[in-house]
Amino acid sequence: MSKPPHARATALLQRRLGSGLVKTDDATCYAASFDSGRMSFLPEAVVLPRKHEQVGEVLKLANTHGVPVTPRGRGTTLMGSATPRQGGWVLDLTKLNRIRIDDEAGMAHVQAGAVVGKIQDAAAAKGWFYPPDPSSKAYCTIGGNIACNAGGMHGGKYGVTRDFIIALKGYLPTGDYVEWGTATRKFAAGFNLRDLWIGGEGMLGVVTDAVLRLIPQPAARWTLLTSFTDEVSAFTAARALFGAKVQPAICEFLDRYSVSCAEGAMGTTIFPGQPGKPVILLELAGSAAEVREDKKRVLAWAAEHAVGHRAARTRAEAESLWAVRRKCSGAMFQMGDAKLNEDITVPLRAYAQFARFLEKLRKSSGLAIPTFGHLADGNLHVNIMYHKADPAECARAEAAVQALMEKVVALGGAISGEHGIGLAKTPFLRIQHSDAAIGAMQAVKRALDPQGILNPGKMFEVFETWKCPKEAVSFPWDHK
Amino acid sequence: MSKPPHARATALLQRRLGSGLVKTDDATCYAASFDSGRMSFLPEAVVLPRKHEQVGEVLKLANTHGVPVTPRGRGTTLMGSATPRQGGWVLDLTKLNRIRIDDEAGMAHVQAGAVVGKIQDAAAAKGWFYPPDPSSKAYCTIGGNIACNAGGMHGGKYGVTRDFIIALKGYLPTGDYVEWGTATRKFAAGFNLRDLWIGGEGMLGVVTDAVLRLIPQPAARWTLLTSFTDEVSAFTAARALFGAKVQPAICEFLDRYSVSCAEGAMGTTIFPGQPGKPVILLELAGSAAEVREDKKRVLAWAAEHAVGHRAARTRAEAESLWAVRRKCSGAMFQMGDAKLNEDITVPLRAYAQFARFLEKLRKSSGLAIPTFGHLADGNLHVNIMYHKADPAECARAEAAVQALMEKVVALGGAISGEHGIGLAKTPFLRIQHSDAAIGAMQAVKRALDPQGILNPGKMFEVFETWKCPKEAVSFPWDHK
Repeated sequence: MSKPPHARATALLQRRLGSGLVKTDDATCYAASFDSGRMSFLPEAVVLPRKHEQVGEVLKLANTHGVPVTPRGRGTTLMGSATPRQGGWVLDLTKLNRIRIDDEAGMAHVQAGAVVGKIQDAAAAKGWFYPPDPSSKAYCTIGGNIACNAGGMHGGKYGVTRDFIIALKGYLPTGDYVEWGTATRKFAAGFNLRDLWIGGEGMLGVVTDAVLRLIPQPAARWTLLTSFTDEVSAFTAARALFGAKVQPAICEFLDRYSVSCAEGAMGTTIFPGQPGKPVILLELAGSAAEVREDKKRVLAWAAEHAVGHRAARTRAEAESLWAVRRKCSGAMFQMGDAKLNEDITVPLRAYAQFARFLEKLRKSSGLAIPTFGHLADGNLHVNIMYHKADPAECARAEAAVQALMEKVVALGGAISGEHGIGLAKTPFLRIQHSDAAIGAMQAVKRALDPQGILNPGKMFEVFETWKCPKEAVSFPWDHK
Repeated sequence: MSKPPHARATALLQRRLGSGLVKTDDATCYAASFDSGRMSFLPEAVVLPRKHEQVGEVLKLANTHGVPVTPRGRGTTLMGSATPRQGGWVLDLTKLNRIRIDDEAGMAHVQAGAVVGKIQDAAAAKGWFYPPDPSSKAYCTIGGNIACNAGGMHGGKYGVTRDFIIALKGYLPTGDYVEWGTATRKFAAGFNLRDLWIGGEGMLGVVTDAVLRLIPQPAARWTLLTSFTDEVSAFTAARALFGAKVQPAICEFLDRYSVSCAEGAMGTTIFPGQPGKPVILLELAGSAAEVREDKKRVLAWAAEHAVGHRAARTRAEAESLWAVRRKCSGAMFQMGDAKLNEDITVPLRAYAQFARFLEKLRKSSGLAIPTFGHLADGNLHVNIMYHKADPAECARAEAAVQALMEKVVALGGAISGEHGIGLAKTPFLRIQHSDAAIGAMQAVKRALDPQGILNPGKMFEVFETWKCPKEAVSFPWDHK
């Protein structure tokens, strides 16, 4: 076997950090070669810093020797953003995972490798709430959430990761230490490079520490499941709800295909006698008085618009309603063994138009395209299901995803609401953005990473994910 | 008189846009030569685009001919950010001022020159609320607010301008048109250059259009004025309030010196028999039920911590309490004819320490330093008063502002919470930021503005504002 291209630099790094922190064994390198997108590119080493200064050392050495460096949290991203596309070193930040809650200021001081669910638990223990909640929250790290500007179900009312970042610390691609912002709610001193790191997909810097904004834990929650005759009437009802200025903490939509998947998997119908009806699952959150007031308005709305509705009387009942939402994603694999999972957004006014487009796309492609998602922020997960052994289906899936992306942008929406670009969305970036916009992004990348060593080969280079073989691995955060 | 250096380019621009949009008369150029910082630098022309495409034409021509371009809204900034420091053209965006409220989506679609107060009024007419509220809101434009990431009194609970920006459109310094984000609440497609424009002080691009997030108009408000024995006890009380997770919509602090100024100007004492006591002015906002709940907690808090408190029974009474806050700023000029108005931030835990530092600074400098500001976000306005004809006082003011900036950074705070850097804060940027951080900011600037034509000479070049003569002009938005 030939020597890996950066063997000398890797040996130097091992000498500097100790070989315990710089692993080159096959098992470790293989495990870091893919993320949840399951596309594998082998790194030469996996570096596991124990101190934030070591991140700077890694990057400085990488610049000197031209070694690609791919930062990584838990690798729950589906987009291939955390795969070492050009080999080199994976910078695994999971050992930097301290969490401290500043109870008085309502802030969390965390390291990049802290698990989002653990941050939420630590905050909740002191009466605070950190709302962003990607479905992998029990596993994913805040560093990854920041890199991808992660969203989740609470986005409509509370916002996404970006809306809860107060300050960041970390390293420029050159290895220089920087701090963006202070642990204060206002900051207007110099260009806003903090926010450039948010959603930068680990290409513009490496976050080691963050200060997060917390909000008071809602005292009360109330969950309601509603069903509708069809998708267009569900969307029309949602528009009426938001137009009445009701802001549910969560507002999840499942189309009839997603509902059928979930019902099949659970062996029951959600509303007895009404199988396969699209549903909207609502959760109100706030003070007891606030929830009481909004509940009345939501029940009146449901009586007017829904064909069925059922409120949870207890937290356990609410949990059983949420099970519907969680079941649908995994159950979809009965419709195909491969999935193009697209997290597009469409503006509220285009909802009905988009529902009609999806119906047409199902017919013209002959593919199952179950769709669910976050209605309050227009972020829908469109799942194009196909069989990977069938070349004709693959071609139709590829054409369908292209048509989908063109449609959402034409409707004033976005090709990604919360997953980011990584490798998987690169074919569509130029549908969203003009040459000038992409040119500006690339100019910023070159300005901050002149050697091009940080997470290279992502975002701007077109990568056809459907042609790339997928590793047959399962993750604890897979929807089952 | 010699020909202005860019006369040929100006003539070309007049030919292209028509001379009605490109003014070169003395009165227009003088009026655009300064902002509220009153430092004057004459431009060669003032351009008043009527269509957003004309912004692109101006910038393209400026790049070809090397003409400095300074974007400008209403010029309410105190920092000199909107002055044409290197001459050239002022790009006045006030004629691009359309406002449209999307009632259903809870968004405002506005042009850069729209006045913030008018946006608030248009939103309120449909039951929506746009919280950021700099004290000049009846005059200042949203474009300027975005450029400076303006804050205001509502920052603690609701956030600042950045927290309400959904999408921006406009021009890169090169004159290329770009769009950042869509009118949807989530967007994760490509680097976040939208947020780089926010707080970019008009140096990284020119915003022509913005989509703003609105929140439901609070149904109820309740105002309470509280007084304290001294500053340290006021700060200690505030910490107790926030620690109890009460989030007032507004929480304004005035130290004893500010209160004395206001009382002098109004010819009355705020609390009879308690002249010159520091006060905290609170406003709760939310649903009727929410305000009712919080009111009880706030009254219990006031009974425990304050030496006096008085609730407003009507909106008119609330307005009279707010008059105290508005009076203090203008009334300070009885203590000196010049003011260094610094909008620093300090973290909650450092409040008492900072109050003690200010007392020492008053003694050591011999200057009056009345201080007021926004307690819920740690953004305090420290006003160093002096007499500009007295060289010894000037020197002491200069030393005092330097000591202040070093102290706030040492305490974990910021040299500016909402005003930005412009010219006036340039001497302190390197107290806040390391060489690496500033180097990264400058690299981004060069990447996006290779000719260096957009608002040059600001942020990074040290400018000693106290040595610069000030124009004797008054503005409608001056505090009186």
